[in-house]
Amino acid sequence: MVTAPFARVAVLGLGLVGGSLARLLRERGVDVVGQDVDGATVAAAGAVGLRATTSVAEAVDGADLVVLAVPLRAMRATAAELARSLGPDATLTDVGSVKGPVRHAVEAVGLGERYVGAHPMAGTEQSGFAASTADLLAGAPWAVTVPAAPDRLARLLHLITGTLGGTAAVLADDVHDEAAALISHVPHVLATQLLNAVAGAPVRDAALGLAAGSFRDGTRVAYTDPGRTEAMVTENAAWVAPALRKAIRDLESVVAALETNAPVHGFFQAADAVRELGRPGTRADLVAALPVALEGDWPSRLASECASGAVVVALTPAEALLAR
Amino acid sequence: MVTAPFARVAVLGLGLVGGSLARLLRERGVDVVGQDVDGATVAAAGAVGLRATTSVAEAVDGADLVVLAVPLRAMRATAAELARSLGPDATLTDVGSVKGPVRHAVEAVGLGERYVGAHPMAGTEQSGFAASTADLLAGAPWAVTVPAAPDRLARLLHLITGTLGGTAAVLADDVHDEAAALISHVPHVLATQLLNAVAGAPVRDAALGLAAGSFRDGTRVAYTDPGRTEAMVTENAAWVAPALRKAIRDLESVVAALETNAPVHGFFQAADAVRELGRPGTRADLVAALPVALEGDWPSRLASECASGAVVVALTPAEALLAR
Repeated sequence: MVTAPFARVAVLGLGLVGGSLARLLRERGVDVVGQDVDGATVAAAGAVGLRATTSVAEAVDGADLVVLAVPLRAMRATAAELARSLGPDATLTDVGSVKGPVRHAVEAVGLGERYVGAHPMAGTEQSGFAASTADLLAGAPWAVTVPAAPDRLARLLHLITGTLGGTAAVLADDVHDEAAALISHVPHVLATQLLNAVAGAPVRDAALGLAAGSFRDGTRVAYTDPGRTEAMVTENAAWVAPALRKAIRDLESVVAALETNAPVHGFFQAADAVRELGRPGTRADLVAALPVALEGDWPSRLASECASGAVVVALTPAEALLAR
Repeated sequence: MVTAPFARVAVLGLGLVGGSLARLLRERGVDVVGQDVDGATVAAAGAVGLRATTSVAEAVDGADLVVLAVPLRAMRATAAELARSLGPDATLTDVGSVKGPVRHAVEAVGLGERYVGAHPMAGTEQSGFAASTADLLAGAPWAVTVPAAPDRLARLLHLITGTLGGTAAVLADDVHDEAAALISHVPHVLATQLLNAVAGAPVRDAALGLAAGSFRDGTRVAYTDPGRTEAMVTENAAWVAPALRKAIRDLESVVAALETNAPVHGFFQAADAVRELGRPGTRADLVAALPVALEGDWPSRLASECASGAVVVALTPAEALLAR
């Protein structure tokens, strides 16, 4: 399967992620046009040389890839507006932190066949176009979700692993959303809880005065925009809620043991097998693994490999190259 | 109150913190002798030029400051051994991560009058003498606990803020231990829970493959020695257990709201006042505040200032200089 690169990309929503993606695409020589409902944001994008508009119809005119980079709560309305102006062959993707709900929004307006879900695993404490940089997503790891039309999936994988220099884990929506609950959304909730507990404590000021590494790291994401965190968590409530229920049960066992001087050894050793794997690394730590031929139902084969931890690092005309 | 510097310091226990303290003291020109029950550790200390011995009696002979740097579970036994050989004027301190239980151990062997509790707020993922460095505690923030004899307290504050270039928050045991539960021990428990949840999940490998910033930061301390974490948490169970009970109640409210589509805005905004203060900083962020004269019950006045977030940054013959 020989994949042609996308000739023109429209990025709808120029916040931290959308703005960073638009900057990176332009830096890598891609014809890109940005859109945002906020005129000041469009002006700011123009001021750094990005082509930008407030009009969705104008932005997507002639684009063969459209990226939904609006907040999760605006996905459905933007998809509906898009459905009226999207060219017949254009591919639709997104950068949302949950994938099942975005697919439902896109299917609800009849764009499901053209959709390939995506989620770049990168962010900062900041938000908004002013905080966006081409560096944020250069070489970033992405999740890309299936089912997806093979030709559209191949073109998006080519863009991510080739043009943007990143990696792509191809996953079913549910696998992505459960994994994201465990590695991102529940961590955000627990970080918020740590900050809330100190904020409400009689020893608040002494505690903040003593705070060192474990508190700084454990609460870093609680210092990001709490409105965005709330949106991320509520959109993925289907997976976050059961994960939190399990966390509550586990913590109840620990506290009951602490209150009765019973052993808590098991709790502290439970993840020893994962500790032995070392902390999750960066792209530099990846080791090349098997190639997967782009034949037959190759998207499902990729999803199977990626469910066991592999990621796509490159796409040739004949193969996807995986590493882990 | 003119304070004479300590002429000779004995450090009992040459693990990560004890080893780092011994190295730093020597680097700053202090006469220091180390002790460890493990002969290989004593040999390793000797190999880098530290005077070291396996004998507590030999180490403390002639020392006017003795630092208990053994694991929490060994504090009581080491204090008992120490009580037989400690010189009549020597001051006793420690580096334990909980302060009430260490004071009880010291009082139980009749050394309470000579004790000034201390806790350097620094660590790494590693443990043991091999991981120790003078840098770990150079300029570190410490907590120092009261009640304490004013002359002994002044000499220790002089050592920490002068010789070691650090800061000292003077706090009551309970304030320290509740604050430590909130900013260190509960964060360690929640980090362990995050790692355990991924370790036990069907999507474990996909999750580890996707793991990015929030998971890396949120689980960093879960990759430290789980045995040491367990000891820290169980020794401070009196404060950790109620803090965990509160966390469980808060999380139950959040999950109940997520399951019923009720608002969770309050949870995510609860710490806004603390967010506005900015993330807890480093010594460079401190701003000089008031001096406290070393007269009357100055230790209690320091404890009162430090309970509201101040730290001692220097000691003159007449004053403690505070910053916040």
